[in-house]
Amino acid sequence: MSENADLEIKAGWVLPVHPDPTVSLENHSILIKDEKILDILPTAAAADKYSPATVIDRTSSIVMPGLINAHTHTGMTLMRGRADDLPLLKWLHDVVWPIEGAFASKEEFCEDGAMLAAAEMIRGGITCFSDMYWYPAAAARVTVRTGMRAVIGMVLIEYPSAYAKGVDEYIAKGHDIMQQFQGEDRITFSYAPHAPYTVATETWKKLGELSQKNGVFIHTHLHETREECSASCVLDRSHPACHLSENECHPVEDFRRMGLLSSKLVAAHMVHMTDEEIQLCAEKGVNIAHCPSSNSKLASGFCPVHKFLKAGINVALGTDSACSNNSLSLLEEMKLTALNTKNLAGDATALPAYTAIQMATFNGAKAFGLEDVTGSLEVGKAADIISIDVHTHAGNSPMFDAHSAVVYAAAREDVNDVMVNGKFLLKEGTHCTVDIGDTLKRMSHWRSKIMEEFPQK
Amino acid sequence: MSENADLEIKAGWVLPVHPDPTVSLENHSILIKDEKILDILPTAAAADKYSPATVIDRTSSIVMPGLINAHTHTGMTLMRGRADDLPLLKWLHDVVWPIEGAFASKEEFCEDGAMLAAAEMIRGGITCFSDMYWYPAAAARVTVRTGMRAVIGMVLIEYPSAYAKGVDEYIAKGHDIMQQFQGEDRITFSYAPHAPYTVATETWKKLGELSQKNGVFIHTHLHETREECSASCVLDRSHPACHLSENECHPVEDFRRMGLLSSKLVAAHMVHMTDEEIQLCAEKGVNIAHCPSSNSKLASGFCPVHKFLKAGINVALGTDSACSNNSLSLLEEMKLTALNTKNLAGDATALPAYTAIQMATFNGAKAFGLEDVTGSLEVGKAADIISIDVHTHAGNSPMFDAHSAVVYAAAREDVNDVMVNGKFLLKEGTHCTVDIGDTLKRMSHWRSKIMEEFPQK
Repeated sequence: MSENADLEIKAGWVLPVHPDPTVSLENHSILIKDEKILDILPTAAAADKYSPATVIDRTSSIVMPGLINAHTHTGMTLMRGRADDLPLLKWLHDVVWPIEGAFASKEEFCEDGAMLAAAEMIRGGITCFSDMYWYPAAAARVTVRTGMRAVIGMVLIEYPSAYAKGVDEYIAKGHDIMQQFQGEDRITFSYAPHAPYTVATETWKKLGELSQKNGVFIHTHLHETREECSASCVLDRSHPACHLSENECHPVEDFRRMGLLSSKLVAAHMVHMTDEEIQLCAEKGVNIAHCPSSNSKLASGFCPVHKFLKAGINVALGTDSACSNNSLSLLEEMKLTALNTKNLAGDATALPAYTAIQMATFNGAKAFGLEDVTGSLEVGKAADIISIDVHTHAGNSPMFDAHSAVVYAAAREDVNDVMVNGKFLLKEGTHCTVDIGDTLKRMSHWRSKIMEEFPQK
Repeated sequence: MSENADLEIKAGWVLPVHPDPTVSLENHSILIKDEKILDILPTAAAADKYSPATVIDRTSSIVMPGLINAHTHTGMTLMRGRADDLPLLKWLHDVVWPIEGAFASKEEFCEDGAMLAAAEMIRGGITCFSDMYWYPAAAARVTVRTGMRAVIGMVLIEYPSAYAKGVDEYIAKGHDIMQQFQGEDRITFSYAPHAPYTVATETWKKLGELSQKNGVFIHTHLHETREECSASCVLDRSHPACHLSENECHPVEDFRRMGLLSSKLVAAHMVHMTDEEIQLCAEKGVNIAHCPSSNSKLASGFCPVHKFLKAGINVALGTDSACSNNSLSLLEEMKLTALNTKNLAGDATALPAYTAIQMATFNGAKAFGLEDVTGSLEVGKAADIISIDVHTHAGNSPMFDAHSAVVYAAAREDVNDVMVNGKFLLKEGTHCTVDIGDTLKRMSHWRSKIMEEFPQK
């Protein structure tokens, strides 16, 4: 007698990603039951074994794990394109911070920005994101409403803000929100101290202890610019990127001394790293969230990803914010990672397509301790699944190799379906959980407000 | 009394690109008459002045010149993704050349590949492409059928092929095809000798004389890899990229001696250039077709575009082929050019969005002597126009700056309309001149054939 299942996806190609990232299974079916992956087997064999309540035909599509955005700031999406082509400090001081001062101090702004980001991310096949922004409850609520999965960052800087008066309040508010969303199985939390140059030694130590005690990951910006390293080495306090430590050293070395280098640390960027630092991070199990578009757009440098991979570091991918990219598309980041790493390494084989996919899926899950839940298609894991069409648009055909098609040719409009826990967030290109009309209406409202208060020169 | 016009496009924003690439006109209308741009004026003023037969509302879109793909090989599109992540020579010898030997020797294969390429390019806002592939009449016929504009390369290598037996026949066949399509105002031609390492000195000299005599541009690959330069410097004939000249020098220096450096030369790639060579090319008026995705994917190097621009060189953008990219999207190439040039220059202001747009439009037209016809929105020029939506998709909003929205956020699905000579090739996202069903059917046919004859390991 055949076994019941909620859904069968008949796939042209299945990319399980883990344990072997090179595997591509032709004409296989994925069976889903009770929000989880029940089985993956040849479609020809599925008919005898299962009686699915629903069957969908994706024989012209590649079916793979949902993409995981390991580093973003969803609340900034409403400022997309407000100022580009400026030097980093001018951009921050003259544009981003004044607008943030006026708007990101409003929780509603952060929530509407997070919803706009979610709409874009879902459209592009992202099922899970790791966020770091003011009022983290806003992004958590958006996660609940959209059905996405998220790692919500409990934001923290050394200074007072509209959100919190000081370190203790940042931490207390974070813990409150973590408590508030405890029942949500799709939401986990991270400590999200901003960076070595905005968080003091005592605070880092406190977070390190908390992380050790309660198992919560720490997610921060680290070694993003050359200046962060050089100013910290000589404690040049006149430079805004000099770390707040008393030690004349690179922030990574300072982290080592504070005992922060561990598999519970997710460091975004890590563009400027000595070979010794790479080795050290590999030994300590540090996770890196690589954000290639942002690094290029802000002229931060080309990140030596090939060296990270060779050293065995777990490298995930992030879009960073819509202000420094300006897209929230991991399809773009996968391609850029593969292309630029090949070019930097001077070796066209340095980062094959399947590795880029692994970085955008399994490695993202592993970075935040979710590798038993999501990030690959394996029996028993959550049904966090996307399908990518390879037969409808001229731009993604012919399809000879599924990994290549996803990384080098697929675009947002090729993403057919997006599901989390077996529930459709996008079906045949149409949003199921986001009211796109309302999201764009709110976007327009804030756009007008920003243009009123900060008219462009 | 008001003046007749065929069409009025009411645009949210108009980017004319030339003469001032920074200009963005809000709430302007473009009037089209007899295939040409009749006027560009504030929409409020258009009502009194013109009686257009048709009016389309694009007040939620950016309207700009069609994109110009300055370097591609459309016939290769049917091999997209057949082999990636391989070293260049292994890729050519083991995969591309054997498949080309079996299939590109068929004119029908080249034509179906060109049609697939055209479908993709039109969908992504490209109105004009400069092609270089076997059986150039195939791409010319596709240009006629799709309504695109093209510069068709009269392909040439020193060696015999299925297409021609030797240099004289390559040239004669090219001239025949040029003659055959003489009445087509949307088609011009270039001499398309492949590269210094596949074309001999006598042939280069002959092409130089022909170009001077009949005003036809020369389009070739130049200084793509470091090895092309280093092997040519020492005449290392064992290296496949060593130029066929007797001179121990860089190919650019050899071109100087042969009198080939001029404003009639379009050199694709130019990744490896000394400061003196950059200065020389600027003085001679050489045009460069920059192909950033291809350069990165093949690990050829990061191209010093900021130095070219500073020297005053006309730099256009190309996608290269679907085998070394694997997309034919100038939206991607614009973003990658801006991002990587900033990063290479270590300066976030090194290549602003409006310059990327200028490269993908006006500079492409200028490279091939078409700057009086297309590449910008100016009264009297051909109505080669596209519109890009900035209010329907979450990924391309809010819109604060039109140049930024096009370069850093727009994706293929944001392209609404594409027209050439005032005729729609794409209208509201739907192809008007390409039978996409038939195009994909032919693609499937060739995909099966390739998989039959060259089964993947």
